[in-house]
Amino acid sequence: MHQPGSAGEILEILRDGTPRTKRDLALLTGQARTTVAQRLAVLTDAGLVRETDEATATGGRPSAAYAFNADDKIVLAVDLGANHATCAVSDLFGEVLAHTTDAVPIAEGPQTVMGLVLDRLDALRSQVVELSVGPAVREVMAVGIGLPGPVAQDSGRPTSPPIMPGWDGYDVRRVLEERYGCPVFVDNDANVLALGERAVAWPGVQDLMYVKVATGIGAGIISGGRLLHGAEGAAGDLGHVYSAAAGERPCRCGNRGCLESLAGGMSIAATLTEQGIPAGSPRDVVDLVRAGNLESIHALREAGRAIGDVLAACTALFNPRVIVIGGEIVEVGEPLLAGVRESIYSRALPLASRNLRVTVAQSGALGGVQGASRMAIDAVFSAEHLDAALDRAPAAVG
Amino acid sequence: MHQPGSAGEILEILRDGTPRTKRDLALLTGQARTTVAQRLAVLTDAGLVRETDEATATGGRPSAAYAFNADDKIVLAVDLGANHATCAVSDLFGEVLAHTTDAVPIAEGPQTVMGLVLDRLDALRSQVVELSVGPAVREVMAVGIGLPGPVAQDSGRPTSPPIMPGWDGYDVRRVLEERYGCPVFVDNDANVLALGERAVAWPGVQDLMYVKVATGIGAGIISGGRLLHGAEGAAGDLGHVYSAAAGERPCRCGNRGCLESLAGGMSIAATLTEQGIPAGSPRDVVDLVRAGNLESIHALREAGRAIGDVLAACTALFNPRVIVIGGEIVEVGEPLLAGVRESIYSRALPLASRNLRVTVAQSGALGGVQGASRMAIDAVFSAEHLDAALDRAPAAVG
Repeated sequence: MHQPGSAGEILEILRDGTPRTKRDLALLTGQARTTVAQRLAVLTDAGLVRETDEATATGGRPSAAYAFNADDKIVLAVDLGANHATCAVSDLFGEVLAHTTDAVPIAEGPQTVMGLVLDRLDALRSQVVELSVGPAVREVMAVGIGLPGPVAQDSGRPTSPPIMPGWDGYDVRRVLEERYGCPVFVDNDANVLALGERAVAWPGVQDLMYVKVATGIGAGIISGGRLLHGAEGAAGDLGHVYSAAAGERPCRCGNRGCLESLAGGMSIAATLTEQGIPAGSPRDVVDLVRAGNLESIHALREAGRAIGDVLAACTALFNPRVIVIGGEIVEVGEPLLAGVRESIYSRALPLASRNLRVTVAQSGALGGVQGASRMAIDAVFSAEHLDAALDRAPAAVG
Repeated sequence: MHQPGSAGEILEILRDGTPRTKRDLALLTGQARTTVAQRLAVLTDAGLVRETDEATATGGRPSAAYAFNADDKIVLAVDLGANHATCAVSDLFGEVLAHTTDAVPIAEGPQTVMGLVLDRLDALRSQVVELSVGPAVREVMAVGIGLPGPVAQDSGRPTSPPIMPGWDGYDVRRVLEERYGCPVFVDNDANVLALGERAVAWPGVQDLMYVKVATGIGAGIISGGRLLHGAEGAAGDLGHVYSAAAGERPCRCGNRGCLESLAGGMSIAATLTEQGIPAGSPRDVVDLVRAGNLESIHALREAGRAIGDVLAACTALFNPRVIVIGGEIVEVGEPLLAGVRESIYSRALPLASRNLRVTVAQSGALGGVQGASRMAIDAVFSAEHLDAALDRAPAAVG
């Protein structure tokens, strides 16, 4: 929360992209025009605001307008999954300007994967700088990265991530900070996806749950406008909640009956294989459903019911406004979504479900980098970070 | 979060009760001593800070010290349950100065119950003012109240509360605002209890879950230092999560298999009655356990296991540091707690459970008013409210 009348509050207003005069800003903030002028000078020096050519006539002579300067700075965004690394450059509105995706197993370890990520980010950044017109600087203002495992919020390090051998305690944040000399924000992939989906499809929604159904199952939970992390960064671990439908199935975590052991993408594939329908990955399941294979459609519906049973509990516990189902499997999401809805609505209390929306994700393959970019932008423009940024930033061009 | 160097930040420092000189405060805030002096003047005028007689010698001449003035203002706190109304006056540290408890069913409706509450609060306030020594003013700075049902956070009104006939949409906040002319904060009773327990037993813990096992079952969830409310104020509704152990039992909510239908205090009493051991209330269950009745000890352990199954899911979803079991039933909490721990630790993942504490509540019958008082104090001293309070407050005495 920015202090009333601060540079941060003025920047927050201008971040919608609309240019405004000093008079507009004085009215909107309730501050004297001299105070507004001082704040604008600080923001202009930092390269975050520019005087525009547009001028508004308000009966008297035209006044200069000020706009959020999204051209001089960029944000780098990374989305690491079990088997992919998507890297991107975005502007300060979170708009992706360029991106790459590589098929690289996270299990190759941090040196290999982060080496690739740094190469890709450097190349993307050069590409965007070359394409820029005029005097744009394209300085890196922040980096956001999502990892497929729990992340300790204080250190930005993965903590005992089950599918990331070699990454436990690895200082992801420092590697990126040292390369780009700017704040770096690290979080779990499902959390980042929740932020991306909210930005793209549900702006303003304060209570949203994003459920990623891919190889495994995880969730990003936004409650009261903020992501939940928990004491160890392990909040949202939906895949290892007990599911009666999963019963005694062994789970890769070492326990039995986890939701993921029945309804995760790899488990669905294994179940189909047992039924004589060879499937080795969630991608194979998607292809089978696309081809109209009945058993795989049934398997998805059953998985949806089991996920919905757990989400019914989540509805009582979090009282979300929106539940979004995402991940690779929802490319053919209808049978799964039908099962999810069936279970949620048969359990949920009227109060918690009367305004609840249950739907599939609208952000696609770039949802992860969109979310990582939003995470970084929102954090770096927060009251906590902005003052430091204003001290650090070099004087603006022009 | 208070802006660095603001009056709010200085007050936040002084709220620990230790007097400090201008020099101390300049060092702690990094502000010039003249700025600190200005802020202290504002806070002294508002009656929130006083110059103390204590003086610290730092090699040179003694300097005046400034202290949080907890004597001139009070906070009113109310804890309404299914069958009781506890009212209290606290100081600005949350210390309860006087309190009353009446046996009044919430189902009597808002006119009756709130009429009683206002009478009690007025009487308690007079009592505290009469007992005050010196020039203390004892102005009411804020009111906090907990209700046994969901509360919409924007309006402070109960929303479709199942056990509060006549209260749906009742403007609790306005009734108290009109009487006392100060900010009023309303929340669900389990939420308020979570705040009280944290203040009393777990200061500094950011991720705490408080489970109230009384007539029914509800939970207050603090995640990342903040209470979860959800879209309708219905978050934490643990009692109506499906429990396999409850199976097909009908619940008072109209559904079947809710955790509360097996493990709530009234349900335990009903189960014992069916077994030929007459029990009409959670209080009877407590008395039976105290008398060493084996069936009731077994019933509590079984209830604990069922609660623990749902809490194992909560451990994966919220990753709390502390789970506290409270409510009337934990006066004889050991069998219940043993069952809870048995289930949680047989399910929880190593990462989420390695630092987890599961324990019974330490705050007693006054936990509700302690929590309501903390809620009001923390809110009224937040950046959001303090500026308004500084404008409104009359000049201090002396």
